[in-house]
Amino acid sequence: MNTDKKQIKSSTIEKWVVSERQKLLDTPVFNILSHRSTLEAAGKSGTFYTIDAPDWVNIIALTTDQKVILVEQYRFGNEQISLEIPGGMVDKGDPDPIESAKRELAEETGYSTKKWTKLGKVAVNPAIFTNYCHLYLAEDCTLKYEQAPDEHEIIHVHTIQLPEFMQMVKTGEIDHSLVVAAVSQYILWKMDKS
Amino acid sequence: MNTDKKQIKSSTIEKWVVSERQKLLDTPVFNILSHRSTLEAAGKSGTFYTIDAPDWVNIIALTTDQKVILVEQYRFGNEQISLEIPGGMVDKGDPDPIESAKRELAEETGYSTKKWTKLGKVAVNPAIFTNYCHLYLAEDCTLKYEQAPDEHEIIHVHTIQLPEFMQMVKTGEIDHSLVVAAVSQYILWKMDKS
Repeated sequence: MNTDKKQIKSSTIEKWVVSERQKLLDTPVFNILSHRSTLEAAGKSGTFYTIDAPDWVNIIALTTDQKVILVEQYRFGNEQISLEIPGGMVDKGDPDPIESAKRELAEETGYSTKKWTKLGKVAVNPAIFTNYCHLYLAEDCTLKYEQAPDEHEIIHVHTIQLPEFMQMVKTGEIDHSLVVAAVSQYILWKMDKS
Repeated sequence: MNTDKKQIKSSTIEKWVVSERQKLLDTPVFNILSHRSTLEAAGKSGTFYTIDAPDWVNIIALTTDQKVILVEQYRFGNEQISLEIPGGMVDKGDPDPIESAKRELAEETGYSTKKWTKLGKVAVNPAIFTNYCHLYLAEDCTLKYEQAPDEHEIIHVHTIQLPEFMQMVKTGEIDHSLVVAAVSQYILWKMDKS
């Protein structure tokens, strides 16, 4: 069972074939699909449920004095006040998700910059979600606009020292999985640079 | 807008109050709820949709020779073959999620160990999910059982050098957001130790 990367790439796992797809539910943030899928070679078939959503973005945004820009807001999923990096949905009209990232940063925090780096892209949850989250680093941010949150958003903006931010991720005070994933890509990017 | 941790903790963001909750859809992996919520102080109210699921676990499992144990399988969400660390749902009957982690590791890979460390816990997506994912490190794993996957699971097990695993996370060859989040907690834990 010892594998090297080449062997994984030539692996023989087969994709299931979707024979029938149905939209079960339509909400402003996601849709629920059911599909009948078959893996003929293994004589298996079943009905599976997935969550269809547009791609998302999030941004590790640093001010000119190396502070992390955080947004604090009520979250309807776990019914908690959550401290996160800025982010949101990719707009269908955007030719590249970076445009959505720039807009979300400006709307949620009022901050803006020209120094953007793509840190990576993660599959939100390939078992049940169709979509990806694009992760960005925005450096040298300065306060340029008024906040312009969406109708139901009440957002408090905080800036905090980078080491303190890392500590809060470690202790779980900052716990949104996609924020923690962005931190991972930031650390790996930083290690590579140094 | 300069904040220190103490100020964030005394922040004045208010929680919305849920007045009516309805289950819209029931699947084997998640349920969809709608709830009418109100934030009286701000004169706001609306209907919001959330995804209710049991807690999850995932495990960075290392063999006695420091290789990472990976599972490769077809994923119905993004319809891709995905390379991940082992994981799954927390069983209602388990007094502690670590029991589920131990069982998932054994069932998906056949590996087992007594050396477990909790790396942390992330909110899957507090905006829409009710649940958390518990992240573990399992060291000194040895192959002890036959694989015992669920009915629809076809899983190939791989073991790969730790630096190569990190590289595959960095390049996006390993891209499940909860795996990347576990990597973040592993790196921060490792930094703290050294």
